[in-house]
Amino acid sequence: MKNVKIPEATVSRLSVYSRFLEEVEKQGVNSISSGEIAESIGGTPAQVRKDLAYFGEFGTRGVGYNVHELNEQIVKILGLGKVWRVILVGAGNLGSALSQYQGFKDRGFEIMAVFDNDIHKVGLKLNGIPIYPTHQLADFIVQHNVQIGIIAVPAQFAQDVADIMIEKNISGILNFAPIVLTVPEEIEVRNVDLAVNLEVLSFNIESRRN
Amino acid sequence: MKNVKIPEATVSRLSVYSRFLEEVEKQGVNSISSGEIAESIGGTPAQVRKDLAYFGEFGTRGVGYNVHELNEQIVKILGLGKVWRVILVGAGNLGSALSQYQGFKDRGFEIMAVFDNDIHKVGLKLNGIPIYPTHQLADFIVQHNVQIGIIAVPAQFAQDVADIMIEKNISGILNFAPIVLTVPEEIEVRNVDLAVNLEVLSFNIESRRN
Repeated sequence: MKNVKIPEATVSRLSVYSRFLEEVEKQGVNSISSGEIAESIGGTPAQVRKDLAYFGEFGTRGVGYNVHELNEQIVKILGLGKVWRVILVGAGNLGSALSQYQGFKDRGFEIMAVFDNDIHKVGLKLNGIPIYPTHQLADFIVQHNVQIGIIAVPAQFAQDVADIMIEKNISGILNFAPIVLTVPEEIEVRNVDLAVNLEVLSFNIESRRN
Repeated sequence: MKNVKIPEATVSRLSVYSRFLEEVEKQGVNSISSGEIAESIGGTPAQVRKDLAYFGEFGTRGVGYNVHELNEQIVKILGLGKVWRVILVGAGNLGSALSQYQGFKDRGFEIMAVFDNDIHKVGLKLNGIPIYPTHQLADFIVQHNVQIGIIAVPAQFAQDVADIMIEKNISGILNFAPIVLTVPEEIEVRNVDLAVNLEVLSFNIESRRN
């Protein structure tokens, strides 16, 4: 890999390309053009070529990309192709939706446990994953060497949950709570802000009208 | 507004800045620096100034930004400050989580109705919003002049739902199903791909190690 900073938008698109390549490989396709890959995401062939060029030379002019090899490369680049140990905090509606999201498991993100403070949920399973009380979170992270924590609790509880994860040296946090977490430099955080998505959409709709 | 294309990353950050400004205004803050705004998102003051510069001159050197005025401007830019008529298709876990998401309502996105094919759900309410059968979706969009449709159904049903929205000339679609929708140019689509977020996170974690 070249020693340059890869834009996050490129990383996001690589993730989409990769799942598209998996899909077409299942359908028996061996070779694919940048134009066909671009269609999967509604982008342009030039953008696909530029995204892939960050990682060196792929593909052959006039022949296209070998589907299997290209996907193997992207999977490696994204840090996939192995099992990530993940826990989920919050067994509400969003937590339930996330725990049953097949896309996580398919890509190597194994949700090992769910944590919630609701005594009616503790001891049950959420889509097959055991639910433990939140006071066991810290020990579980250490004992199972958990790498990624997903936060799906209401905003007012999110920082407390993050603090436990931080104290136990988790590598990354995916935060769905609509709050900016205070997290030290050495821990990766990614915020999924559902309102942002709706607001970018409304901006784009308005821009078309003007 | 200058007649330039605003990068989507800027629009996303404006959305976060705006909610941060609302928060500090409630706390009685009148004036704020680019550095303080930057902290809200874990960014830099230079990035904040660059983001805001797309829309003309804001703020006074040494004094900072007037919180209320700045937020008013951003809200206008984002196409907020009015009510957007929204419907939600899919009353499962994700749909439930979305329907109770206070961040949508606070920002003017009014979910008027939820649609689902489950006869056990039809006629009930989801967080106070009535659930109708999906065969009534087309008529509802027309009768209520719905502008935005949120798709929270399993992947295999998402295109059918989108096709109804497209036929009835909805302005924009926010798609949570992990599938690339085929949509004509004139309709805005935004895909929220939950797996992408986890994969960008794992990429960032791996990048730190190398």
